[in-house]
Amino acid sequence: MSSIFSRIISGEIPSYKVAENKYYYAFLDINPLSKGHTLVVPKKEVDKLFDLDDETYQGLFMFCKEVAAGIKRSFACDRVALTVIGLEVPHVHVHLIPINTMRDMDFTKPKLKFDDEQLKIIAKQIQDRI
Amino acid sequence: MSSIFSRIISGEIPSYKVAENKYYYAFLDINPLSKGHTLVVPKKEVDKLFDLDDETYQGLFMFCKEVAAGIKRSFACDRVALTVIGLEVPHVHVHLIPINTMRDMDFTKPKLKFDDEQLKIIAKQIQDRI
Repeated sequence: MSSIFSRIISGEIPSYKVAENKYYYAFLDINPLSKGHTLVVPKKEVDKLFDLDDETYQGLFMFCKEVAAGIKRSFACDRVALTVIGLEVPHVHVHLIPINTMRDMDFTKPKLKFDDEQLKIIAKQIQDRI
Repeated sequence: MSSIFSRIISGEIPSYKVAENKYYYAFLDINPLSKGHTLVVPKKEVDKLFDLDDETYQGLFMFCKEVAAGIKRSFACDRVALTVIGLEVPHVHVHLIPINTMRDMDFTKPKLKFDDEQLKIIAKQIQDRI
């Protein structure tokens, strides 16, 4: 069965798309740690980051660099953190999280909640600045 | 003034080196979240990840891939997580953390403690498996 991310990429499950090219797809985390928290995934479905072939792996991080620039231009933050954990969904995903303090990176804290309208605006803001 | 990481790279401050080439340096985090927690830094002193030039940025992640393979072969773990936060030292550093559960990635938990002898053994284990 396809991963939830493959189903998002195919459009079967709706998402707040931030950027896309032939190989990668970026969309908002709907349970964000901070405003603008984005997930970047390779369209190729591979469980673990370091199992990606070199080309897909390098391309993924270059795509992240472009998306992170859009995030940084959209929201007041000290920097955009990048993290790959991957225990929950067996499909490589990079978290890009605008942060000001270590607290913004704490995955154990309660997530922020935005409604549909707000998420559309956030995604559009980033899209327009990539 | 040079960052603490530049002083580690130059040998002014001792470290438990795991790997090194002309452009990058990998060494143990002495306040690790899990056994084998390693830091990878570009020798070029730049504060923020996404401010690295493309070549240094791509090379950094390729170097991380090699180091992560050594970590994975050295310690029982589900996978090696990768995270770049960077609020504390203004010199890009990638955390490579062998993890089994989300708890292994919790930067707010008390850090593990290993003595000098143990850290030497851990660094050697990874070195030998890269």
